[in-house]
Amino acid sequence: MKDDAPLDPLDFFFRPRSVAVVGATPDRSKGGYAIIANLLEGFEGKVWPVNPGRREVLGVPCFPSVRELPEAPDLAVVFVPAERVPGVVRDCADKGVRAVLVESGGFAEVGERGAALQEEIAGTARRAGMRLWGPNCTGLVNSDPPLFTPFMRLPGMNMRVAQGNLAIVAQSGMMAAGFMIQYLLTGYFKVSKACAIGNKADVDETDVLRYLTGDRSTRAVVLYLESVSRGREFLRAVREATERMPVVVLKAGRSEQSKRAAASHTGSIAGDDGVAGGALRQAGALRVKDFGELMALGRAFAMHPEPFRLSTPEGNRVAVITVTGGGGVVLSDLLQDLGLRLADLTPSTLKRLQEEVFPEWMGPANPVDIWPAVEKRGLAALERSVEIVLADEGVDGLLLLPFASRMVRDYPFAALGETLRRWGKAAVSWVFGDRRFFEQFDRSMEDIGVPVFPDLSLCALAMHGYLHYARLRRRSSERWE
Amino acid sequence: MKDDAPLDPLDFFFRPRSVAVVGATPDRSKGGYAIIANLLEGFEGKVWPVNPGRREVLGVPCFPSVRELPEAPDLAVVFVPAERVPGVVRDCADKGVRAVLVESGGFAEVGERGAALQEEIAGTARRAGMRLWGPNCTGLVNSDPPLFTPFMRLPGMNMRVAQGNLAIVAQSGMMAAGFMIQYLLTGYFKVSKACAIGNKADVDETDVLRYLTGDRSTRAVVLYLESVSRGREFLRAVREATERMPVVVLKAGRSEQSKRAAASHTGSIAGDDGVAGGALRQAGALRVKDFGELMALGRAFAMHPEPFRLSTPEGNRVAVITVTGGGGVVLSDLLQDLGLRLADLTPSTLKRLQEEVFPEWMGPANPVDIWPAVEKRGLAALERSVEIVLADEGVDGLLLLPFASRMVRDYPFAALGETLRRWGKAAVSWVFGDRRFFEQFDRSMEDIGVPVFPDLSLCALAMHGYLHYARLRRRSSERWE
Repeated sequence: MKDDAPLDPLDFFFRPRSVAVVGATPDRSKGGYAIIANLLEGFEGKVWPVNPGRREVLGVPCFPSVRELPEAPDLAVVFVPAERVPGVVRDCADKGVRAVLVESGGFAEVGERGAALQEEIAGTARRAGMRLWGPNCTGLVNSDPPLFTPFMRLPGMNMRVAQGNLAIVAQSGMMAAGFMIQYLLTGYFKVSKACAIGNKADVDETDVLRYLTGDRSTRAVVLYLESVSRGREFLRAVREATERMPVVVLKAGRSEQSKRAAASHTGSIAGDDGVAGGALRQAGALRVKDFGELMALGRAFAMHPEPFRLSTPEGNRVAVITVTGGGGVVLSDLLQDLGLRLADLTPSTLKRLQEEVFPEWMGPANPVDIWPAVEKRGLAALERSVEIVLADEGVDGLLLLPFASRMVRDYPFAALGETLRRWGKAAVSWVFGDRRFFEQFDRSMEDIGVPVFPDLSLCALAMHGYLHYARLRRRSSERWE
Repeated sequence: MKDDAPLDPLDFFFRPRSVAVVGATPDRSKGGYAIIANLLEGFEGKVWPVNPGRREVLGVPCFPSVRELPEAPDLAVVFVPAERVPGVVRDCADKGVRAVLVESGGFAEVGERGAALQEEIAGTARRAGMRLWGPNCTGLVNSDPPLFTPFMRLPGMNMRVAQGNLAIVAQSGMMAAGFMIQYLLTGYFKVSKACAIGNKADVDETDVLRYLTGDRSTRAVVLYLESVSRGREFLRAVREATERMPVVVLKAGRSEQSKRAAASHTGSIAGDDGVAGGALRQAGALRVKDFGELMALGRAFAMHPEPFRLSTPEGNRVAVITVTGGGGVVLSDLLQDLGLRLADLTPSTLKRLQEEVFPEWMGPANPVDIWPAVEKRGLAALERSVEIVLADEGVDGLLLLPFASRMVRDYPFAALGETLRRWGKAAVSWVFGDRRFFEQFDRSMEDIGVPVFPDLSLCALAMHGYLHYARLRRRSSERWE
């Protein structure tokens, strides 16, 4: 922990100076191996393996119990069978450990006996003034300072977690681990923190969201939740968070059948406790339905967490510049489903498009179908139409629907980026066509701050997210004027 | 055309013995080059370039007009400026051409003058008893016998169009071309035909759907439409088609704003003419909202066009076998949104899962969370749980949610495939985790007939599609018993 850091109890989880790993082992098939091997590779503080059956693990001296450690670690990571966890947690309390992360499963998610064990360790921690994270989770990842606690071995993981401004919170362990592998390792976005909170015997989504709201490296948060432990307090935390950053929530358990499924999974009562979709929206969060949507909004906000500039009072007017009329039509339906409207371009905009971009025989409209213009004038038609459309004061955001082909090499990315920066309006791009050019297009657009999605519905959703957050911040700033 | 083929007027488009290309040119920047170059590479019949300014094109003798051709071609593909098209169509009529495909734009989609031109060529064709396809389209692709008419150059395209059983119909030219490049070339699915119908001056979606219904190589159809020309007849054609094959429709223009957009795009009145979502569903079609959904169902039905076996009277009971509890919970919500229910597993199924798969401390339920069992027994837990769950007579379909990792190499694909074949029930798989193993997983599952999607919502949609079609065919067969 840096000395200048505010002393939040959760700092001992996110920025410990020392970590004990209870259940550390050199057996490569075990989670206790993965945890210590990952830490030894990337964590910059002290690491103490704890295992009564070993004298050293991976070349590091091993201690028979937490009580025998040379000093109290800031954080103890516990991965031993459930029935042995209460004793370990007592040892931690006695030793003066500040934070315990229990990754083991076999607690409330497996029935009454497990629930009793969970109650016991939560009570021990509470009485000792020690915070407890988990059980039944993969723990957390911090990109700065580097910390990676999950029990899957990812060689070099700490180094590869690209440092960013997005925080991910997920209740489910496998999902959180899957997210990290699928999205982090492939550079879909960069993160500040990733948190798998599991059964939430003590530390819950409200605690974590509050911590992230005060975290200087976090600028946007996405949460996957199966249950909410303290409904009112969570909604208050969401409201506070959205004053500083966009918050996106995938709240499972919308239906009766999924609530039952959640109960048997993380042992939680998924009863919403007042946290229905409407309440979440009122608190300023964006609610989504699928992991792909959650990650897409995460990507969009990681690339641009600040609120965009709005031009219209409604703040929901969108222009579409497209090379495919059909794509524009389908997108119009998807925008409407999300409460967005096609902007009515002003007569002056239409006149400029006609004179400077469109062929004579074709009248411009929104969606702005530039294919015939591109055939006639090349990619200058794209560059010019973006300039003209962004200048329209009836346009809040711009959706681009270009075609990926060999032409991607000649796209006027730098000029587009310059125009977008000048107007400060939201922009999102689709990509379709020749897949061999998707990645190049994607990277070039990312460089100028425009997220790209291969699904029109994700494009519409990202635009909805950008404009939603911009409206939220405008209302909030109006309150203070 | 093979002599044994039934003589449908549309055969002259799909299986011509000879093709004239009006507007053929050696200028590589022009569509008229792409059309002839593609044909010379892949088409097995006679090809005649037509262009008054050339004596040969790409080494083939060129004719100044259709009238000068040595004989009447079965098909004339026309790609010249709009104002020259009426003369060309008259020449075709005079010569006795059977089918004219007009790819040129500049007709009803650009206003009154274009609409008059379009009316003129449609009248010429009608009076001559000649069918006219287009204008303002990219034409069609047939995989057997090979025919590729679009005006974008794709070297080797004819060879690479993998022959399959799915037909694609799309009103919008760029979209149709984009689909072909994006989905066909990357092997997302294999097709029998791909049809871009454009402004539909004569041949429309009803004609094409009827043709495909009688086509021996087509087993499933996906349609992207911005307008429907003859509502009642189209619905009748859909009903007839669904007696033989699954039909999926993306009908754009659901909202007022998109209807306006469609009008300026393909010059069509998108007024539904009775073809609302409800009517389409009643006729047996599946309706989707985005291209990604249309293509996903196309992929699912291309892999399995036959109706699956249903076990329950409702035919909507789904089992989920998952390594992530969280994925199972979110999927439960998405299934419910589509009218699907989590199957209530019978006591005997639960008993077998407990005894043969699950660890003692964990009680099985649906979603069947096999992660702890996999940790204990390895991938045998997956194989065994699939066998047990498919045997349950309360289960109509199975969703698999496995994790992609190095373990993909050891997945029991062959055994899974054998079990699935034995029960004849619908199966769809998600994939998440380490992207490096997605493709391998995908291909291996495809080999055993299970479509894989990286979005849970597409998995739910594909299962919905499979069960919808199975219910439809069950009802239909009951009528005849």
